[in-house]
Amino acid sequence: MQKPSIPKGTRDFSPEETAKRNYIFYTIKEVYRLYGFRQIETPAMENLSTLMGKYGEEGDKLLFKILNSGHFLGDMSAEDITEGNSAKTANKISEKGLRYDLTVPFARYVVMHRNDITFPFKRYQIQPVWRADRPQKGRYREFFQCDADIVGSDSLLNEVELIQIIDEVFSQFGIRVSVKLNNRKILSGIAEIIGEADKITDITVAIDKLDKIGTEKVNEELASKGITQEAIEKLQPILLLSGTTREKFSQLKEVLASSPTGLKGVEEIEYIFDKTDLLSLKNELTLDLTLARGLNYYTGAIIEVKALDVEIGSITGGGRYDNLTGIFGLPGVSGVGISFGADRIYDVLNQLDLFPENFTYTTDLLFVNFGEKEAAYLLPAMQQLRSAGIRCELYPDTAKMKKQMSYADSNHIPFVAIVGENEMKEGKIMLKNMETGEQKPVTIQEIISDIKNY
Amino acid sequence: MQKPSIPKGTRDFSPEETAKRNYIFYTIKEVYRLYGFRQIETPAMENLSTLMGKYGEEGDKLLFKILNSGHFLGDMSAEDITEGNSAKTANKISEKGLRYDLTVPFARYVVMHRNDITFPFKRYQIQPVWRADRPQKGRYREFFQCDADIVGSDSLLNEVELIQIIDEVFSQFGIRVSVKLNNRKILSGIAEIIGEADKITDITVAIDKLDKIGTEKVNEELASKGITQEAIEKLQPILLLSGTTREKFSQLKEVLASSPTGLKGVEEIEYIFDKTDLLSLKNELTLDLTLARGLNYYTGAIIEVKALDVEIGSITGGGRYDNLTGIFGLPGVSGVGISFGADRIYDVLNQLDLFPENFTYTTDLLFVNFGEKEAAYLLPAMQQLRSAGIRCELYPDTAKMKKQMSYADSNHIPFVAIVGENEMKEGKIMLKNMETGEQKPVTIQEIISDIKNY
Repeated sequence: MQKPSIPKGTRDFSPEETAKRNYIFYTIKEVYRLYGFRQIETPAMENLSTLMGKYGEEGDKLLFKILNSGHFLGDMSAEDITEGNSAKTANKISEKGLRYDLTVPFARYVVMHRNDITFPFKRYQIQPVWRADRPQKGRYREFFQCDADIVGSDSLLNEVELIQIIDEVFSQFGIRVSVKLNNRKILSGIAEIIGEADKITDITVAIDKLDKIGTEKVNEELASKGITQEAIEKLQPILLLSGTTREKFSQLKEVLASSPTGLKGVEEIEYIFDKTDLLSLKNELTLDLTLARGLNYYTGAIIEVKALDVEIGSITGGGRYDNLTGIFGLPGVSGVGISFGADRIYDVLNQLDLFPENFTYTTDLLFVNFGEKEAAYLLPAMQQLRSAGIRCELYPDTAKMKKQMSYADSNHIPFVAIVGENEMKEGKIMLKNMETGEQKPVTIQEIISDIKNY
Repeated sequence: MQKPSIPKGTRDFSPEETAKRNYIFYTIKEVYRLYGFRQIETPAMENLSTLMGKYGEEGDKLLFKILNSGHFLGDMSAEDITEGNSAKTANKISEKGLRYDLTVPFARYVVMHRNDITFPFKRYQIQPVWRADRPQKGRYREFFQCDADIVGSDSLLNEVELIQIIDEVFSQFGIRVSVKLNNRKILSGIAEIIGEADKITDITVAIDKLDKIGTEKVNEELASKGITQEAIEKLQPILLLSGTTREKFSQLKEVLASSPTGLKGVEEIEYIFDKTDLLSLKNELTLDLTLARGLNYYTGAIIEVKALDVEIGSITGGGRYDNLTGIFGLPGVSGVGISFGADRIYDVLNQLDLFPENFTYTTDLLFVNFGEKEAAYLLPAMQQLRSAGIRCELYPDTAKMKKQMSYADSNHIPFVAIVGENEMKEGKIMLKNMETGEQKPVTIQEIISDIKNY
């Protein structure tokens, strides 16, 4: 007899957890739809040729590969084994892999269906992805991504819209966030003017420590990374940026005056601030030059969202990438997108106790089962309740009252109905409110209005 | 440059297809919930030890196996290759597989979480499954199952409830169906009284041909399968069952008088007919002794649903299985369940043109983009519309009018709003109904009520 388990880093979701997760997906989905995004779905499996080489060497290793079915050993030689070259052999016996994110499958989708798509194409996609990462707290091998992207439009109005969406989603969740904004072109501009194009990451990491360790130590760190004194000198006005966001923009424009790319970046980010100013967002939008996520692919805006009341990493991120589809043979398509991290949002909602109390994942009403005669009487009554939208169930067995009540209890069913000889004679139902303990005889119609107003 | 494709037997779903599929899932889900079922989700990957040996030898071959990550060749010897024993080697390099159905993962879930579950446990689950079947029309390697099961209750009220659910779901879809019912115990009883316990399948196949080829030919076929003349003799009253369902039950009871198992089967099915008679179902429930699906695991009721107006296989099926969880170390748990075939239901709805016209998968309203000034004016207006639940979008680029209109057209957006100099001055919006071509100046409030009533 085997004792069953599930693969490391994967999870089962109980009815309560599933309902909470659905609440997250539903909220995000409805906001996406309010902004005109359309849902697509792609297969869990993609050809390895689609996935390989898109996530860096490390990413390739984290792909879950699927064994070719049938006589997969046909292509493999004994030398493949004695050589012990896993990577090489893996390619001979596997042609498919589980998707690693939703972005590459989306790019593949856009290229494959380009003749059916009207651009700009606004799509959202909420599906699981798989990564053979070492499992740890808050990191899973199967998790959901909730992406929205617009492809085929260079307009910065798209960035504005995605920020509105972020603001709206977190307002609906009741999670206070800071929406951090940067622009890859500003970072490129900075690297350009100090002549250290390949040191962008070191520079942003150092700037990030400014609050904690002060200017002097930051400068020491920059020097230790091999950045010249002259470059560090030029960097000072950026380290010392101060005042309102608008004032920072002016300072940046001065510093970046000689870099057309840098100036373009400032102009782009300024446009976004201008437009969101018209919209009285509920969460604060901040310029954050230390934001350097996705430097390999983002080419314009970089967006990151942090929860203000919980210590946790980024809970949403995104940015603009040019040439998403170039690798699949469709160059010149620019895109911008965001991705909500459903698992982290789940943790935040749980920690702050923000899941709405009235989200229902259970029956409204349990009928106690006293026997065949009562069951026969109740079946049509329940049919009537259900056509009025009341979720009800009859305990299937004639079990002890205590057992039936405890079933209602552990399933958080708010109402229990008791119908015995007397009630049948009088055409009534004894309705018990499980929270208050109150019970009273009512009609079907009264149940409908009682529970609807509950 | 690679030309992208997707694995054989898998599918991309466009926004329209996704919306239609969501309509199917949503309908089934809401009915499940009306009857008190609770949703769970399980991981796409299961340990192969959980999956292997549960679906017969053929099923094992159809499992998609996932390559162990890292140095998977560690356990494999050069002989494994030279021997060419694929099956043996596969087990050394793979420990996980994609789930093949939702029933085995559910059994695994019940056993793993038995201490947290209050029985009877009514769960539903709507997730994809994967099978390395040869792809063909209507058969895919990735497809969704929509299952509901009750475990931990022997009550036949569960069967009644599942039949109600089937009736309700197909009524909501507008698909006329025949719900066919059989009972494994009746089939066992028949085999028992004719002394041919191992010939159940041959007998049901032969009975199935009765209408087409007549009694005489059926008897010939039975004889050709090695069934004795004496047995064929005893089978005649069953072949000749006639009259109403109730009359058939009486005839069956006579024939099966010497088989307690067979009589129990008739009693069970009669109970279900009695109870559903109280419920004036919209679809016909019929006794069908030729129904022999899942003979390997069903132990009581066998249910199958056929569409009346489309030639297609079974679109929903189910039954009762005892001892679902026995293999994982939890004996004595009886269950009964059904599974809606979403892909076939999709085909039926499409063929009969039954997808509701007003299911929305797109924006209500597109604002034409005339330039920066207009965009700035529209952003807060659209915010107002969205808080009233109107799905709207601004075309992100200042493209030619014709291009913007054709975007609305191909995305089936029913309304287009035009706001230029004049409209801004007058605080109006020119609203165009894309179907009638009618256009008129309106206020934001008028748009809200117009579109809500649309």
